[in-house]
Amino acid sequence: MVLERLQQMAAHVTGQKTQTHPFDPLSTEEIAAAVAIVRREHPDVHFNAVTLWEPRKAEMMKWLASPETVPRPARVADVVAIGRGSKVYDGLVNLTEARLVSWQLTEGVQPLITMEDLQIVETVVRKDPKVIEQCGILGIPPEDMHKVYCDPWTIGYDERFGSGIRLQQALMYYRPHVDDSQYTYPLDFCPIYNADTQEIMHIDVPKVRRPLNTAPPINYHSDAIKKESGFRTDLKPIHISQPEGVSFTVDGRTLKWQNWSVHVGFNYKEGIVLSNITFNDKGNVRPVFWRMSLAEMVVPYGNPEHPHQRKHAFDLGEYGGGYMTNSLALGCDCKGAIHYMDADFVNRAGEPQTIKNAICIHEEDAGILFKHTDFRDDSCTVTRARKVIISHVFTAANYEYCVYWIFHQDGTIQLEIKLTGILNTYALAPGEDAAPWGTEVYPGVNAHNHQHLFCLRLDPNIDGPNNTVFQVDATRGEAPVGSSENPYGNAFYAKKTKLATPNTAKSDYDGNTSRTWDMANTNKINAYSKKPVSYKLVSREVPPLLPKEGSLVWKRAGFARHAVHVTKYDDSQIHPAGRHVPQTSGEPSQGLPAWIAADPDANLDNEDVVLWHTFGLTHFPAPEDYPVMPAEPMTVLLRPRNFFTQNPCMDVPPSYSSTPSQVAAGKTGIKGMVDGISRLAFGGSEQKKPSNECGGCK
Amino acid sequence: MVLERLQQMAAHVTGQKTQTHPFDPLSTEEIAAAVAIVRREHPDVHFNAVTLWEPRKAEMMKWLASPETVPRPARVADVVAIGRGSKVYDGLVNLTEARLVSWQLTEGVQPLITMEDLQIVETVVRKDPKVIEQCGILGIPPEDMHKVYCDPWTIGYDERFGSGIRLQQALMYYRPHVDDSQYTYPLDFCPIYNADTQEIMHIDVPKVRRPLNTAPPINYHSDAIKKESGFRTDLKPIHISQPEGVSFTVDGRTLKWQNWSVHVGFNYKEGIVLSNITFNDKGNVRPVFWRMSLAEMVVPYGNPEHPHQRKHAFDLGEYGGGYMTNSLALGCDCKGAIHYMDADFVNRAGEPQTIKNAICIHEEDAGILFKHTDFRDDSCTVTRARKVIISHVFTAANYEYCVYWIFHQDGTIQLEIKLTGILNTYALAPGEDAAPWGTEVYPGVNAHNHQHLFCLRLDPNIDGPNNTVFQVDATRGEAPVGSSENPYGNAFYAKKTKLATPNTAKSDYDGNTSRTWDMANTNKINAYSKKPVSYKLVSREVPPLLPKEGSLVWKRAGFARHAVHVTKYDDSQIHPAGRHVPQTSGEPSQGLPAWIAADPDANLDNEDVVLWHTFGLTHFPAPEDYPVMPAEPMTVLLRPRNFFTQNPCMDVPPSYSSTPSQVAAGKTGIKGMVDGISRLAFGGSEQKKPSNECGGCK
Repeated sequence: MVLERLQQMAAHVTGQKTQTHPFDPLSTEEIAAAVAIVRREHPDVHFNAVTLWEPRKAEMMKWLASPETVPRPARVADVVAIGRGSKVYDGLVNLTEARLVSWQLTEGVQPLITMEDLQIVETVVRKDPKVIEQCGILGIPPEDMHKVYCDPWTIGYDERFGSGIRLQQALMYYRPHVDDSQYTYPLDFCPIYNADTQEIMHIDVPKVRRPLNTAPPINYHSDAIKKESGFRTDLKPIHISQPEGVSFTVDGRTLKWQNWSVHVGFNYKEGIVLSNITFNDKGNVRPVFWRMSLAEMVVPYGNPEHPHQRKHAFDLGEYGGGYMTNSLALGCDCKGAIHYMDADFVNRAGEPQTIKNAICIHEEDAGILFKHTDFRDDSCTVTRARKVIISHVFTAANYEYCVYWIFHQDGTIQLEIKLTGILNTYALAPGEDAAPWGTEVYPGVNAHNHQHLFCLRLDPNIDGPNNTVFQVDATRGEAPVGSSENPYGNAFYAKKTKLATPNTAKSDYDGNTSRTWDMANTNKINAYSKKPVSYKLVSREVPPLLPKEGSLVWKRAGFARHAVHVTKYDDSQIHPAGRHVPQTSGEPSQGLPAWIAADPDANLDNEDVVLWHTFGLTHFPAPEDYPVMPAEPMTVLLRPRNFFTQNPCMDVPPSYSSTPSQVAAGKTGIKGMVDGISRLAFGGSEQKKPSNECGGCK
Repeated sequence: MVLERLQQMAAHVTGQKTQTHPFDPLSTEEIAAAVAIVRREHPDVHFNAVTLWEPRKAEMMKWLASPETVPRPARVADVVAIGRGSKVYDGLVNLTEARLVSWQLTEGVQPLITMEDLQIVETVVRKDPKVIEQCGILGIPPEDMHKVYCDPWTIGYDERFGSGIRLQQALMYYRPHVDDSQYTYPLDFCPIYNADTQEIMHIDVPKVRRPLNTAPPINYHSDAIKKESGFRTDLKPIHISQPEGVSFTVDGRTLKWQNWSVHVGFNYKEGIVLSNITFNDKGNVRPVFWRMSLAEMVVPYGNPEHPHQRKHAFDLGEYGGGYMTNSLALGCDCKGAIHYMDADFVNRAGEPQTIKNAICIHEEDAGILFKHTDFRDDSCTVTRARKVIISHVFTAANYEYCVYWIFHQDGTIQLEIKLTGILNTYALAPGEDAAPWGTEVYPGVNAHNHQHLFCLRLDPNIDGPNNTVFQVDATRGEAPVGSSENPYGNAFYAKKTKLATPNTAKSDYDGNTSRTWDMANTNKINAYSKKPVSYKLVSREVPPLLPKEGSLVWKRAGFARHAVHVTKYDDSQIHPAGRHVPQTSGEPSQGLPAWIAADPDANLDNEDVVLWHTFGLTHFPAPEDYPVMPAEPMTVLLRPRNFFTQNPCMDVPPSYSSTPSQVAAGKTGIKGMVDGISRLAFGGSEQKKPSNECGGCK
């Protein structure tokens, strides 16, 4: 009976969605069906995650090559559930067949902390007598416990408590008023919460106490600014409009823009996942990347005092970039003509939940695409660029991460991340020096040094899955100045080193050689340059992991030990710090180090490979970052090199183009265009007009 | 009589322009007056440059501090003129007094090459019998000499010919049709032009000849694309409009925007010069930089074969970024509401010349300025950023450089440079391998490896002229993992090293420590952080000079030997490769190395100092860069650190703001905003509306 109903439900779901792409995230109906199928056999669990188990690559490639003849990959849900006694279950549900395919108890791990898990801790903390006692020591009376807040982080790893019990550390704060930023009033002690018993099991109290901050509140919300200095009134609106609509199409979740095609997925851990990225090269649809995502990150803090070593959040693996994602709003997060996508998840109770407008897709003008003027005669061609941006923003307690996947007309893919939000802060005693491990960003507020290290997982598909990765270094010619090979000493070249096995494919950044990495298909040679077709990883914000070799963070965040690792493709290798990150000890290291150790000498030459790139920045806070941090951007580029046989964006109409013969024949040169359009900003009626594509200069 | 007339002319000029700011470039009237004053005593010279001799800093600072009581600095013209026999004269004309203040014959130097100097060479080349002979060897008959073109570069330095005669090297090309890109048809020989006799004095012919390329033309101008593939038709317009005008004011050449004030100058060498940059910090106008400009650049090519060592253009010092600047056109170079400024120069004959719309000033939306959401209750503040951009574009023969000086609301100053235009190319014989010193970007076309190294001159004025520069390195705590000082191994801090004397203030980039440099005022301590107020130079595209130590380029481009040099301020030290760059041998090195050698141990601690920063990129060409290169950007940031006591842009009105108490009282949270505005891109009538500041979510 139940089976029959579930099969009907599944048939209904899959029947209704015949156009569901195998990479599409699970729909709310699919999530509900998966939960029901699990519940049939395991009625008492609560749910941590129900997400798409992505089709295996080999199967998916076959289907994509011939969707008419090859069976469509089944829809499968990847389930993480928690039973009584913190028992963790990993399961797979075949939705097409309405069948629980696998279900296993996974010992010694803790799945990530959901927003629901987070929310409950504050309530428990406020009622706990030992916490109330500690608050009292700092001068907060019991009747003010409603003014006590906490950001409950996973415990990371604490050797005293191990991995068996699900734990959170409560970073404690106080708000004089409910609207005051709590980060101005950090409390100096740190309760440990046991999620299984829902109680505080321990409190870390520093030897030297730091009293509650007495500085006045500093806030950035609208009411606070209005009361203080007020807002500036000289900002005139900038309108961006697309009266003829956008230049992209979205079919299901497949975005087509210019020559690009990309499937836009989303899951609770990685957030946006881009798959099957191709570029239409004059009618030839060429694969570029099979899949790319931010797969993990770690934010180590640099204060060695206990228990700050526990502050090294793996925001994706421990909390989930998808789970923490914001609903985006027009004019706030994006401007222009927007296409939004929602994100569907499961909650603890097994019900589908939707974050509206989780993903924003929009175009922007991007300045000059290319330009050249012949100095002889003023003949000129100038073409404007634009870009399409797929973005989401997630809030990790105090910080916000704004993630922008940007596609350019010239074949470049850019990942831009902006950091904003609020610094993590700790108490500072009067007279105490925050240096050298932190900065006093406001009286009594110590913001610790930290790094934001992101792990970008790139599965290249450069004209096919068999690729090879090369480290590329700008290198001086070996011959000395004055030698016959290098008489004037100016020789330099690009030195390429093949990353041939996982054990040797560990590459650090080298600013001194402007190091880049090529993902190449050595089977396909550029007809002109005679070099393999490739995409180049250009990344310049690449600090090393500053926690030392052998340190807790070094052990847990193995992916961050090098700027680049390369592994042989494996369907199961998505999460470079492990599938379940909270409370891993790093002994042994999960994820990348384990995979590499398992097959250190695997051949990576002309194989299906994955490149893991860790980049980010080191942040030494300053008062400018407080009480809210102006967005700080960083960028990674993937650039076609020897992939095309010519500039691939010459098909973009120019704003202006003239040739020498046209100029000779009397066509108005670019200089002739300018007189009528000077000083528009203050020019009276002209300023009212939208400035069009080419202001009369086409 | 003559004197009287000139004095009248000068009085007229200065009287008419009582509002002329002492930093304003010379007007056309002032240029004419300067020429007339010079001509009175030196009637036979022709003019290389007549530009503003900037007021001395001490005098100018006094006047700015009290313009009512201190005499306005005199208007002085800095003149470079050339007499018979390649004699070079450097002169100063006091325009206020209509007086030639100084006039000296400068031996053994060559001033930069003007566009007029360039234009004449092609004509001479086409008529020269030896060139015609060489063309004949390559298969170009004499009657086709009108199809032969050259890009005449300065010779740089050639030890065979020295510095005494004004020389150019003619990089030779051929056009099958006048509208074909000549860079597809480089000729393998290189004539040397004597500017004094206006004749070809020598031809460098390679030992192994390379025939004229037989590949078909490849062009990017509109007619060519229309004939081949045609233009894509799916790009819908993006309109940017500012119906209420711009948010900045321009008084003379002083731009005020948000809290910034900056004087926008321009000269023939550096292009845009920004002076007296201040930030209004809650009513307190604080100096930030006294002057900043791109002061020099060098583009060394990496092919060691003679005579390619001569290809290392100093585009600013040898040609002039101002002289080569483009007239900008709305919708082509910039969009939105634009304010243009013209640029006035002298020509060879002494007449004033104007480049219309040489500088573009405009605002752009800049994404999220800051954002934070409280995960507890969805209360959120999100504020949009914008920026103001002061830009110019210059064409250096084949390449274009797009220079964007960008001011942000958070106190950051950004210099962005985009490279576009056409690769410098050389002939490749059939079967010849372009590697390792170049790439065959199209059949028969060899584009050599090269670097673009820019020298940014920064004269900091961080709360006053007495500043100190520190090198800052992200550094691991010294104590080992497991020690009591660093039990978990996570300690790290910002290590600061004072750059104390010119001889020791030579700092290379270190990617391994994410090296930055602080320009600090150690006399003024941030009230909260207790650290000196400072601006931080953040620059990540910092390749070392690849020509080796002791090489020709290393000798001539002393500024490029290190990422950062610091010198004591000197009014006369503007040009780090010397005042007159063409044909300098580098023995001894001009500019920076000479200044440092003259006073190597000068105190730079708490002194008026100048920071010279060399940055750029190394370019290994690929077919994607041909026949015209998609713009490649690079960025340098100057960020306030410990300069303000809080985030300085909280006065920007938010797009949306709610507090916890407002949310509790029923104010619509950010998530409530989204339902009405989903899927705008394909949503029918909504897509027609311009998307305003905050789409209803304020």
